Amino acid sequence: IIESQLTADAVDKGDYRHYMLKEIYEQPFAISQALEGRFINNRLQENAFGHNAAEVFDNIKAIQILACGTSYHAGMVARYWFEELARVPCNIEVASEFRYRSPVLAPDTLIVTISQSGETADTLAALLEAKKLGAKYSLAICNVPESSLVRESDLVLMTRAGPEIGVASTKAFTTQLATLMLLVIAIGRRFHLTEIVEQKITSELFSLPGKIEKVLQLDDEIKVLAEQFAEKQHALFLGRGTHYPIAMEGALKLKEISYIHAEAYPAGELKHGPLALIDADMPVVTVAPNNSLLEKLKSNIQEVSARGGQLIVFMDETLASANDENVRIVKVPQVGNEISPIVYTIPLQLLAYHVAVLKGTDVDQPRNLAKSVTVE
Amino acid sequence: IIESQLTADAVDKGDYRHYMLKEIYEQPFAISQALEGRFINNRLQENAFGHNAAEVFDNIKAIQILACGTSYHAGMVARYWFEELARVPCNIEVASEFRYRSPVLAPDTLIVTISQSGETADTLAALLEAKKLGAKYSLAICNVPESSLVRESDLVLMTRAGPEIGVASTKAFTTQLATLMLLVIAIGRRFHLTEIVEQKITSELFSLPGKIEKVLQLDDEIKVLAEQFAEKQHALFLGRGTHYPIAMEGALKLKEISYIHAEAYPAGELKHGPLALIDADMPVVTVAPNNSLLEKLKSNIQEVSARGGQLIVFMDETLASANDENVRIVKVPQVGNEISPIVYTIPLQLLAYHVAVLKGTDVDQPRNLAKSVTVE
Repeated sequence: IIESQLTADAVDKGDYRHYMLKEIYEQPFAISQALEGRFINNRLQENAFGHNAAEVFDNIKAIQILACGTSYHAGMVARYWFEELARVPCNIEVASEFRYRSPVLAPDTLIVTISQSGETADTLAALLEAKKLGAKYSLAICNVPESSLVRESDLVLMTRAGPEIGVASTKAFTTQLATLMLLVIAIGRRFHLTEIVEQKITSELFSLPGKIEKVLQLDDEIKVLAEQFAEKQHALFLGRGTHYPIAMEGALKLKEISYIHAEAYPAGELKHGPLALIDADMPVVTVAPNNSLLEKLKSNIQEVSARGGQLIVFMDETLASANDENVRIVKVPQVGNEISPIVYTIPLQLLAYHVAVLKGTDVDQPRNLAKSVTVE
Repeated sequence: IIESQLTADAVDKGDYRHYMLKEIYEQPFAISQALEGRFINNRLQENAFGHNAAEVFDNIKAIQILACGTSYHAGMVARYWFEELARVPCNIEVASEFRYRSPVLAPDTLIVTISQSGETADTLAALLEAKKLGAKYSLAICNVPESSLVRESDLVLMTRAGPEIGVASTKAFTTQLATLMLLVIAIGRRFHLTEIVEQKITSELFSLPGKIEKVLQLDDEIKVLAEQFAEKQHALFLGRGTHYPIAMEGALKLKEISYIHAEAYPAGELKHGPLALIDADMPVVTVAPNNSLLEKLKSNIQEVSARGGQLIVFMDETLASANDENVRIVKVPQVGNEISPIVYTIPLQLLAYHVAVLKGTDVDQPRNLAKSVTVE
């Protein structure tokens, strides 16, 4: 409700054709805002989450993330981070499922909700359900300070993305990821996140705005590539590990604004069904950063290519290109493993944007969708 | 490897046009086999899981399910059952993701793997990874007694579906669900599953073969309905709670054998993106048993219909039909809440089968897929 004050009147599109494009380009600034003032001498200050944050963090033993849509994808990335980087037990669930299924919560679980508007009805209801089940601690990752979710939560970390007008979320998502990483640091310190890893992550976070600026320079290349999609009805997005949720987010963007039926799979599941769909009419988009899963992903890529599928691979610039006429490669600037999912989001946003423009859809106001889903 | 001895030579298709259809029709018998001899005086005998089962079950505090493809969907249903019916903390993960991400396992977690062949490479590797992470207890739900997964597990419950020849799994899936429910009972007794609920579930399980026989009588009606799909390139499957994984399984069947791009969503997520796809070209299939989520699902159905989407709703025969020309209703015999996901699987199998036959695909050997995925 409050958010409606921030619509087109209050915010200028500037030279951009659509709010969505403007918001994609605002991400370096938005992320620097999200990090601003939250570190002293390169060390995260826990009171950024609230004056009693340290006390809460000292007590929690597990994390339950609840969210919907794009925010759910941010939470999925965070789940990998919590468990892999800090060994904090972490679950995530779609809010509309959690709230109706009588879930089992471990004692001293921190409920982490994620919502751009802070008014997402299912997320709010799921938080209240968790409290009814005995949850003592809650934290909201949110973009609107006065929102219901913020009011209902013990701790809060604002994403500070600024008003987001495009219905398809872009800068809200990447700032959610950046702020979730701050939470991983704060809680991880009490688990198994070492000082060295914390410093590495911190320095990677500070490098994010610059990295994203570089990735935005791929815009023209991606625009050309988008032509490949304009006539398609389908697309498959593949990723592994922290980049599986990024594949999901890329597919959702394409769905939302271009009305192409894009679906994401963890790459390892390809052989368990979706490979049957692959032919020349179904482009396959993969995010292939230079991490330990690359070799596995390469074999998935070969499976697709061998069946005539057209591949678009966003991969680390330092890797050797495949010599395969079915494979189109976009080289992404080298980036640290931890923040890589944030960086690889950008080209997928640009891809969805340019495809939608080519298809002539209403990019900022796609059919059937509302910016904040305040009904169940 | 062992499974290959059970192919066409050894098994007769009988009067059925395809193995898949035969296997769909074998489900009442397969499920009665899965239950056979595992109860004495209507009480589940825990030694069905192995002679030391009781000792293991006494020690476990949580469950981690690992599986791929169709078996993953069976595990998803079981997760709802474990937490909702028995308050046993339960997680589930795609095996190919679990094995590479350094997950956090709670102490005294039972690792439950599910695989028809028992040779699924990722599931096997995920089990070994869990053991490396310190997991002390493991149990396999499997259809092939001599398989690698069985050999690697402390406890085993065979699904006894008999040889499954069709690449798209049918009777293996429903017997997995029936045997998983036996596990829910055995472990649930140590948590919060009451004697009364156990008896209710047991009697529902015994009613399954008869219920499925009745549902199979919908075959002709579903065959007619399949014509609506023959020209389509897309479909959306919706469900909530335990029926969300059933919607996923229905979508996977359609994908695998008809090459229609079907995707499943938990119905509450519809408004967070996929609703943008809905138009007259994308039929929407929903499973709507008569449970507490029905009212919520009805409002999702209206959203789709209001946007011109064509709906097919599989719903409880006791419910009043909607008066809406965009909604086609198939009435399913009344069934208890607990076993409902098993029963609602059948019409979705039949739908996928008839669509594939209409499209003239190779139903039993769909392109690009193998029966057992024994490579990573």
